[in-house]
Order: sequence, then C-alpha cells, then structure tokens
Amino acid sequence: MIKINENYLKLQSGYLFPEIGRRVKAFANNHPNAHIIRLGIGDVTEPLPPAIIEAMHKAVDQMANKKEFKGYGPEQGYDFLINAIIANDYNSRGVSLENTEVFVSDGAKCDTGNFQEILGLNNIIAVTDPVYPVYVDTNVMAGRTRKINKKGRFGGIVYMPCTPDNNFVPELPTEKVDLIYLCYPNNPTGAVATKEQLKKWVDYARENKSMILFDAAYETFISDETIPHSIYEIEGAKQVAVEFRSFSKTAGFTGVRCAFTVVPKELKAWTKDGKAVDVNPIWNRRHCTKFNGASYVSQAAAAAIYTEQGKQQVRKIIELYMSNASLIRRTLEQIGYEVYGGVNAPYVWLKTAKKMNSWKFFDYLLDKANVVCTPGSGFGTAGEGFVRLSAFGDPANVAEAMERIKKL
Amino acid sequence: MIKINENYLKLQSGYLFPEIGRRVKAFANNHPNAHIIRLGIGDVTEPLPPAIIEAMHKAVDQMANKKEFKGYGPEQGYDFLINAIIANDYNSRGVSLENTEVFVSDGAKCDTGNFQEILGLNNIIAVTDPVYPVYVDTNVMAGRTRKINKKGRFGGIVYMPCTPDNNFVPELPTEKVDLIYLCYPNNPTGAVATKEQLKKWVDYARENKSMILFDAAYETFISDETIPHSIYEIEGAKQVAVEFRSFSKTAGFTGVRCAFTVVPKELKAWTKDGKAVDVNPIWNRRHCTKFNGASYVSQAAAAAIYTEQGKQQVRKIIELYMSNASLIRRTLEQIGYEVYGGVNAPYVWLKTAKKMNSWKFFDYLLDKANVVCTPGSGFGTAGEGFVRLSAFGDPANVAEAMERIKKL
Repeated sequence: MIKINENYLKLQSGYLFPEIGRRVKAFANNHPNAHIIRLGIGDVTEPLPPAIIEAMHKAVDQMANKKEFKGYGPEQGYDFLINAIIANDYNSRGVSLENTEVFVSDGAKCDTGNFQEILGLNNIIAVTDPVYPVYVDTNVMAGRTRKINKKGRFGGIVYMPCTPDNNFVPELPTEKVDLIYLCYPNNPTGAVATKEQLKKWVDYARENKSMILFDAAYETFISDETIPHSIYEIEGAKQVAVEFRSFSKTAGFTGVRCAFTVVPKELKAWTKDGKAVDVNPIWNRRHCTKFNGASYVSQAAAAAIYTEQGKQQVRKIIELYMSNASLIRRTLEQIGYEVYGGVNAPYVWLKTAKKMNSWKFFDYLLDKANVVCTPGSGFGTAGEGFVRLSAFGDPANVAEAMERIKKL
Repeated sequence: MIKINENYLKLQSGYLFPEIGRRVKAFANNHPNAHIIRLGIGDVTEPLPPAIIEAMHKAVDQMANKKEFKGYGPEQGYDFLINAIIANDYNSRGVSLENTEVFVSDGAKCDTGNFQEILGLNNIIAVTDPVYPVYVDTNVMAGRTRKINKKGRFGGIVYMPCTPDNNFVPELPTEKVDLIYLCYPNNPTGAVATKEQLKKWVDYARENKSMILFDAAYETFISDETIPHSIYEIEGAKQVAVEFRSFSKTAGFTGVRCAFTVVPKELKAWTKDGKAVDVNPIWNRRHCTKFNGASYVSQAAAAAIYTEQGKQQVRKIIELYMSNASLIRRTLEQIGYEVYGGVNAPYVWLKTAKKMNSWKFFDYLLDKANVVCTPGSGFGTAGEGFVRLSAFGDPANVAEAMERIKKL
C-alpha cells in the first residue's frame, strides 16, 4: 500500500497568496467597476529592458541554427553567466569565488526550498518571525517539525521575532540552533542588516558549527552604501553560509526564471559521528540529479544584465520601483502611519491603523480604497498588526493608491 | 552543529555520464585529430523548427511590452499550454483529463526525481534493472534505501530484471511493492510495453494499492499503432498512476526546459492508519511551494509544438532520428550483433561483442571506431554486457559511425 508523506498533512491548507486571491476575486465580482490596485504580491510590472530582450532574441536565433543550437547545458549553469556573476556581484565587492561555487537555477524559491534536502532531519531550524513561508513549509514537508499550534507556529522550529524594537534583525537565540534562515534586505519587513549585525550571526554560526542560509534576493535595492550586499562581505562567512540570489526582482525575471546559489568550498556539515563533510559536492550531486539546468534563453538573458547597457537599463527600473517605495513611505508617514522599510528594499512594512489585525486592515484597504496589500500575519505571529505594501507597480497606480489612502 | 543528510553518502560518487565524459576527454587529449562521434548521452542535435522559433520570438517581444509582459505565471503552467496538451496528447487517444490534473514543469528529470518527496519513507520501491539512475538516486537521497552492495544495488529496493527473455518488460514482483517506476518506451533498452503488459501492472497496483510512476518521456517515438502512448489508455490507471512527459526529446527542448506531469484526481495514497488521501492536492502543494513555474518563453515554445505547422515540423525531426535508429539497428544486425530497441524508441540496446563487459566494449568502440556509446552496466546489473546507442545525432555522423563499426 502506497503511503503518503504525512508531514504534508501538517501544513496549513490556506497558503497566504491564494487566500488573498480569493478575497480579491470575491470583491471584484461584487464590485465589477472598481479599479483595484494591487500592492500585494511582490511581482514586477515593468517589461524587460532592451538589452535583455536583444540577448533573448539572439539566444532564440541560436536555437534555430544547427551549429549554435544548445541542448543540455551544464546543470550548474553556463560559464558565461557564472563568470559575469562572480565578476560583477562578488569581485566588485571584494569577495572572490570559484566557478564551481556558483549554481545557476530556475529560481531562488526553488533553491531556498530545496537546500534543506541535503541536511539531516535532526537539525534545529531557526527562522525569523515574520518569515517568507517557503523556508518553514519545506522543513515541515521534510519532517523537521511537529504539529502546528493555534498561533500558527510549528513545534520544533525556533521562531525569532523581528519587531521595531530590534529593527527587524533578530537577537541571537538562547538555545543552540543548527540551521538559520536570514533574508536581508528582508521580505516582508523591508529591513536591512548592517555588517555588525551580520557579523554577530556569522560569529555565532562559527562558534556553534551552525549553517546560515542567507537569502539576498533583494540586494539590488540597497541604496545605503554601508549595507553589505552579500554575507561573504563578512569575514569567515564562507565557512558557515550559503547565499541565494535571484534575477526575479533585480531584473524583472519572475516570468523568465533564473537565479543562483553560492555554496562555498569551505562550507562544512557534519555526520552524526562528528565527521566533517564538504557541502559543495553534496549540493552539486543534488543539483545534477534533481535538476537539469536553467533554460538557455533565460541564462543568456541573465548574462545581458551584466553588460554596460543592461546595467544602466536595469538600474532605471530599480529606481522607478524605489521611487514608488519612497512615495508610499512618505505618504503614509505624513498621514500618521508607523512605517518601516522602503528605503533599501522594495517592501514597506506598515503598522495597521486603529489596532486592526492584519486581515481586518487588508479587508479595510480593499473595501475602502480598493488597494490590495499583504497581511503581515500571513508571514508569522510577529507580523500580526502589520501589512506589507509592495513597491512593484505602475507609478501612476501607486500614486493613485496613495491618494485614496490619504482620503480614508 | 549542522548535520548533513547522510543518505547522500550512500550514493556512488561516479555518476554514469561524468565518467563517460572523463574517458572521452582523456581519449581526445591523447588523440587530438580523432573525429569522435557521440552516440552516448541522449541529447538532441537538431535545431528547433521554425514554428517554435517564431513562437519564442513572439513571447520575447511580449516580455518587452508593458501590456503583454508576463511576470509570475501559475506555478502549474499556463492554461494555453495545458489545454493544448490535453487536447492533443490525451483526448486524441480517448483519455479525458481536467486542467488541474496537469502540472507543467521545467523537466521530467526534476519531476521524476521530486515526486517521491510527497510519499512516505516507508514505501517499498521497485525499479526495473536496467533503470534511469535518477529514480534510484533520489530515493537513496530521501532515505528509502540501505547501503549499496558490490553489485551496485541498494538494500531496500526491489530490482526487476529486464532482459531479452522478458522482452525488457519485468515480471510482477513476488513480494509486495508500494511504488513502481516504469518507463516505456524504455530508456535505456528502447523496449516498449503493450497494452496487455501495462494492464498487468495496473491490475497489480489496483489490487495492492500500489502506485505506478510512469515515465512516458519517449512516447513520440512510438511507430507501432498498437502500443499505448499513455498509461491512462489502460482502464483504471487513473486510480494508480502518475505520468511524466517531456518536450526534451519530443521537440528538441533539452536546452529549452519544459515538461509536464499528470496527477489524476482519482489517485489515492494512504496514511499509516489506513486513511485515504488525495494525491493531486498534495503534489499541487509541493509544486507551488518548491517550484515557481516554467519560463514563459519555454511554455510559449511548447504550445507551438501543438500547432499544425509545429506538429509537421517536429514530426520531420523525429523521423530523422528514427531513420538514424533504423540505420544503427540494421547495420549492427547485418554484422551479427544482437540488437534490441530502435523501432519505437530512439535508443538501440546492443549486446556487446565477444562477451566483453559494458565498459570494456565502451573503451573498444571509443578506441577502435572513435564512437561513444553508453555502457549498459551504468544503468544496473542487468545492463552488464550491453551498451546503449542513441539515435540523436547528425545522419552523416551516424552513417560514418556505422561504417567504422562495420570495419572492426
């Protein structure tokens, strides 16, 4: 008899975004003439810039031509892309990497979800609260947790609250933890971590032989020059940290699908008997066995981001989104809201008005202003009483949304 | 202390294709003027046909245009593709499917590797021998096996020998098994399963509440009209089978990355307490949490395969490969080899000459004819004494390879 993986039955049935989708759809059905402005899900809205489009057309033409046709590529990604990544994203910030330390993939969601597979089931997981749900759910699926409690927290996970009091960067845990998920610039709070704050975590991990999974999917949005873009800017981080990056938000690749993960050669994990094991070849084995490389056209598109024209064009789009973020932040502050993020990240984290809970405030904004946000409680207990507003959107729509909220 | 998933340490370090790569590279370095013909790895060589190229250019142009730009799509795939799949691949063969039973992905390797994740660790796995290594390795990684023995077999897996005696379709196992991997047309033997043979397996699964993972990645190559293309052509199969399909070999998509998996609504698995669970929503949860949709350009490309022009153009390429297969088969038979496959599949399964073992024959062909094959023993114990020749290649190269082998 075929047995199901019963860990899946521990998951909450309603995932955040489907629930938002259901409520918006119901509202739209009841108000067919409402112009709904979506500042909820973090999806880009600007089209791909010319340098990337040109590279994609060129790649498609290669696929039509027997001499240049690309079949299976290296599962780890083409060197033309890996070289560009290392030179532009790492060497430029004083970090050296070997080509075999970079693994190109079809998305950071996949990579952050998959990485835990190569780690033992008996590791203690620590996540921030609020948190990107994929980190938690994939550990639940794998069987590292007990049941969920009434607060929506899984037994066996260490939740580290991120609140205005700690600037949304968690304290070191009092118990020992083995695997730590950190995401800075943060989704959903829009907070960033300074070098000093990250150093505390790297030192903790080195002392305790823990591993940090560092999600840097939003590093492009950093404007403050003192904020690190990569965890490897912290000394010793290569011994303890994996870094995830994505082109999704950097360059509008949510529909193109390309990302990468850095697994340093120095990184170790241990057997139960205390024998050190190199993590890089184990991830390589997983990547080559359960993945078959990102689309050639997507990799060619990603490489174009690193050309001079590509960089300039992508920067313009980032500036457009960040000017949305700035407008959202400014407007809401002006009318008396408590607002976080939106300076070094495309997300604004907003304390709800009149002590409404997150879903109530979601319904209030949808109903009164026809604006969709993301309820903070969907990201964890400590997100209750907040909502996330995304800066991805048409500037005219964002301005209109702010006008409507002002009038409430 | 971060613990590694020790199941990975049970895997053999040398994966088949890297070892082939190493040997071919060493030979090429020692014989820089040799014209090596690769009939080893099953990668396509013909470029994408015009209808697909046109669709890809059009999709790229949409990405440049704010109104038509595609960000995150449905994780399960766009309906325009799912509708085309159901109408052309299933309805045309008398199989009805709902849209929510089809999950578009970036590759059948990923899907066949990932699917086991949603099933319990205590299931008994049955695989054919020889077998596509991904089925076995992903179960080893998950922890469903014990150590590997000297023959290269993992404890805890039921291996079902496929030999000329059973026409490479295994007998029903004498012990009860829970999860059965079947691949027809078969990689690596090129064998096919008749309706009667598949019915035996479907009946077994229904009687024993087992699940069949049916890999139909090579169904396009079937020329015999009596052979089923889908396991759902067998009555009752929807209750017990998942089907994997790929555009990789069908339409030269090994570098484009698009595939799909069918998980029928009727399919059940069970908890330890014997409670039936619907598998479709569990796979959907996994797919939406650990995957973020296939590239839009790749999905647009895949949809073009189903247009009238696309069908004709793809058919021509399939015929080219199958005429290679036919030439390989005919030539080797003529010179006295024992040859299987190559009629309804792009692989020819060849008994080695002079009772050489697979790797010895591999070296012999490489050394004497400069032709690369795939050692059958790399696919399992029962593959020893065979090699796989792939029909993917330039017809002139295939003809040249056959001339060289004739002269040996």
